[in-house]
Amino acid sequence: MEKIKVIPLGGLEQIGLNMTVFEYEDEIIIVDCGLSFPTEDMLGIDLVIPDVTYLKQNREKIKGFFITHGHEDHIGALPYILKEVNAPIFATSLTMGLIEHKLKEHKIDTLIDRIIVDFGCAVRVGQMSVEFIKTNHSIVDAAALAIYSPAGVVIHTGDFKVDYTPVYGDAIDLQRFAELGKKGVLALLCDSTNAERPGFTASEKTLGKTFDSIFHEHENRRIIVATFASNVDRVQQIINTASAYGRKVVVEGRSMVNIIQTAMELNRLSVPDNTLIEGDEILSYPAEKTVIITTGSQGESMAALSRMANGTHRKIKISPMDTVIFSSHPIPGNEKAVTKVINELLLKGAEVIFQDTHVSGHACQEEIKLIYTLTQPKYAIPVHGEYKHLLAQEKIAKELGMTSDRIFILRSGNVLELSENEAGITGDVPCGAIYVDGLGVGDVGTTVMRERQNLAEDGIVFVTLVIDGYTGEYLAGPTITSRGFIYMKEAEDLLEEATILVTEKLEKLRGQGVSDWGRLKGAIKDVLGDFFRKKTKRNPMILSVFEEV
Amino acid sequence: MEKIKVIPLGGLEQIGLNMTVFEYEDEIIIVDCGLSFPTEDMLGIDLVIPDVTYLKQNREKIKGFFITHGHEDHIGALPYILKEVNAPIFATSLTMGLIEHKLKEHKIDTLIDRIIVDFGCAVRVGQMSVEFIKTNHSIVDAAALAIYSPAGVVIHTGDFKVDYTPVYGDAIDLQRFAELGKKGVLALLCDSTNAERPGFTASEKTLGKTFDSIFHEHENRRIIVATFASNVDRVQQIINTASAYGRKVVVEGRSMVNIIQTAMELNRLSVPDNTLIEGDEILSYPAEKTVIITTGSQGESMAALSRMANGTHRKIKISPMDTVIFSSHPIPGNEKAVTKVINELLLKGAEVIFQDTHVSGHACQEEIKLIYTLTQPKYAIPVHGEYKHLLAQEKIAKELGMTSDRIFILRSGNVLELSENEAGITGDVPCGAIYVDGLGVGDVGTTVMRERQNLAEDGIVFVTLVIDGYTGEYLAGPTITSRGFIYMKEAEDLLEEATILVTEKLEKLRGQGVSDWGRLKGAIKDVLGDFFRKKTKRNPMILSVFEEV
Repeated sequence: MEKIKVIPLGGLEQIGLNMTVFEYEDEIIIVDCGLSFPTEDMLGIDLVIPDVTYLKQNREKIKGFFITHGHEDHIGALPYILKEVNAPIFATSLTMGLIEHKLKEHKIDTLIDRIIVDFGCAVRVGQMSVEFIKTNHSIVDAAALAIYSPAGVVIHTGDFKVDYTPVYGDAIDLQRFAELGKKGVLALLCDSTNAERPGFTASEKTLGKTFDSIFHEHENRRIIVATFASNVDRVQQIINTASAYGRKVVVEGRSMVNIIQTAMELNRLSVPDNTLIEGDEILSYPAEKTVIITTGSQGESMAALSRMANGTHRKIKISPMDTVIFSSHPIPGNEKAVTKVINELLLKGAEVIFQDTHVSGHACQEEIKLIYTLTQPKYAIPVHGEYKHLLAQEKIAKELGMTSDRIFILRSGNVLELSENEAGITGDVPCGAIYVDGLGVGDVGTTVMRERQNLAEDGIVFVTLVIDGYTGEYLAGPTITSRGFIYMKEAEDLLEEATILVTEKLEKLRGQGVSDWGRLKGAIKDVLGDFFRKKTKRNPMILSVFEEV
Repeated sequence: MEKIKVIPLGGLEQIGLNMTVFEYEDEIIIVDCGLSFPTEDMLGIDLVIPDVTYLKQNREKIKGFFITHGHEDHIGALPYILKEVNAPIFATSLTMGLIEHKLKEHKIDTLIDRIIVDFGCAVRVGQMSVEFIKTNHSIVDAAALAIYSPAGVVIHTGDFKVDYTPVYGDAIDLQRFAELGKKGVLALLCDSTNAERPGFTASEKTLGKTFDSIFHEHENRRIIVATFASNVDRVQQIINTASAYGRKVVVEGRSMVNIIQTAMELNRLSVPDNTLIEGDEILSYPAEKTVIITTGSQGESMAALSRMANGTHRKIKISPMDTVIFSSHPIPGNEKAVTKVINELLLKGAEVIFQDTHVSGHACQEEIKLIYTLTQPKYAIPVHGEYKHLLAQEKIAKELGMTSDRIFILRSGNVLELSENEAGITGDVPCGAIYVDGLGVGDVGTTVMRERQNLAEDGIVFVTLVIDGYTGEYLAGPTITSRGFIYMKEAEDLLEEATILVTEKLEKLRGQGVSDWGRLKGAIKDVLGDFFRKKTKRNPMILSVFEEV
């Protein structure tokens, strides 16, 4: 009996880190290679990538990376992972455009093979082949993947919604899903993001009308629209409306500029002539004849909109003439940051619109039911979401008549073996989250992170001491310095008292003949720790450095 | 023309820190004295209190603190502020019970005069008097205040909603608001929290039916309800339902136990005999005959529910027999923490209910209109909320026909002078947010906070050097140590290279005759800063300590 292994390396415990290994005999293909953004407790971390120890151990088996779409949580780890395991990348046009941009930034674009695949085409790599099926999502050129192996067909939806009236290109290829279902689908890996939400996600196109009516009502004001840089369809609709109302469009924010440029080059975005102007030209036009499309809809502190809101944007000053539209919904965790930006904009007199100007890119319950009903998979593997989302999809699958033994809620690292006759988790491979901080990948681990958390909470106290190498006498110090603990200029008495305590303790230990540095440092830590806890109820990190002369 | 000054010292830029000064001639009364909880960027801070420099400068004028209700954002700063400015406290019964508990914890209960005031009663202090008017809110015994002065009557609603069918006690005293309105109200300070929401807030009592039907559907399971400790009415309804279904009730979480005990002592909560049991007794009853009421509905990491969810609760283990109800809504900023707890509970097999099991304690738009229409104030001063909430209330006031010159959106510290004939902001007093960290009040300011943020982001590098006091020779060091910057055990090469760079620089400077410590330390900072930025793209704090022998 032929078997295929499905091994998720991320994406099941969080939004982000999407990466799944499909293994047939001694061949591996990888679907997606995403990053996740650091949570609050990951101090100083820039981004997080999946642990690919398993791929490094099986380098020779890897046939390629197949990417469903161009969002960071699906492509963002590629430059880092490709440095570890080089393999060709397969993706649709815009997805590959965005990947190329990334590889160039990391200066590895010449080292990696890249193959652009059209919808409906299948790529054969070894004994498996992969077909790209058209779907709809909040970025164009999103694909589901049909993975053919001697063990059967596995469908991975990628992130998707069903949009019968998309802004660019075709609706999701429901006929192909049906056709595959008719022939027999071994397993379906389906997007769970909106599995808790009843009904259908609205079409992206519904927002066109919303923009029209907002532009109509605000003909005498400058309009600023903040949205996700990657939502090319959204940008297209804003540009269409701007052009219809005779407004010039300025694009602000590095990622927005990049993506719009890539999308235009690939004909995924069509901009009427004389519509786009450079940021510096905006002052040559009446404010009410301009639109600014900008990043920052999630309240990101360094994004263009945040800089406009707090008055540090180089070119654009917010005034009571402005109407700011948030064409987005705060991603969980960003609510407070978004509210802060809204309050700052209001304080500068702007009008702010943040309701009914966004639709989701993910399938709600009725769309998930549709895909299950068309594909009739033997096994269901809910993916893309936190545990609660996966459970919500499991509930849907059960409503459709699937029994528990056919549904697998996996954890990252699980090895799920599937065949026509049986299925089960047969083991685990290493997995996890690797921190990227500056140029360091993985060099900030639990030790350094615990230090940062301790430093952030209560700061650090340093004790220096100079010891005579021959006599063991203390030649200078102990000197106590602190950072992030207390305002030193107003804590002279406290630090003096601490210095006396440490000096006494050290002299006492010397009297007892103790000269072991480890013991002396331990004693300093105990004395100061107790003292500061009693006096301040704080637990600064305490670090002693001894110098021998 | 008689004038009264209204001076908010907090509560207008954020949720929390509610505190407003009312000043007539040389007499001051203070309404509320709240704390706010630290935002993410306030590293290591326990809580935040208002800056009361203005009160300290005018100590002899202060007649008393008048407290609208017993929530932390209205009473939490009292123990700290009372140590600075001692004055009697006036409040209703439950509010005073909760304040007393706080003062005892801070061991200042014997130093502060406390006067319990009944609804409908007015207290005269100097030339002003203050009447407590019954309102409804998510805590019992909430009051609006009518402040009488020779300049006119000012009404402060406190936090309120209109609940025609409250769980405990009477509905809001709308007749009294009408009566005062009829006689003439100079100004209305009205709660803005829900001013963006249309319609009416539902009655607390509607939840009784919801609990009944959930308990009915889950007769064979243990039920755990997480809610706000201070929502005595909510707890009452859970206890009522538990009792009706013959379940025993266990209360978990220190603040929940405290408030329930205080409320029972003051007859604000009535518990049927043999219903409450101690935590340890829970195992003596069948699981499906128990209910656990617990803190932690906001995902607070140390709260009882979080400890149950992550498996560290001493007594209660979550199992697939459990149904957990979140009778709460995440406060903005807590969404992710709440989701984390939900996922952990689901992973342990529990069922989780988090929709339709909460009502707000704040007035929506129609309720705000009702209070304005009853009181017909000459001036409107929206309070309690972020700027966007205050603006939303301003919009409501305008819809009701008030002109801009009669509405004041204040900032903390503004001095608003009101009289029958004119009103305007005439100045500012000092105000701000003071950090409480452990036993320290205000000793962590911008310097220490900036240090903590820097330490949290990139850690610290510490350079020690021993210098011969006579010759200027370097006797030991430079020694480089780091914390929170890089994993030192795997960065030996980097630190060695850094040590060589610093040594060379110091020797070079010595060759040039430079001996000034400031210049030497500056040079170390530059050399190491550049080196680490180039090698790691990180900016650790760099601290040098020199010892002279």
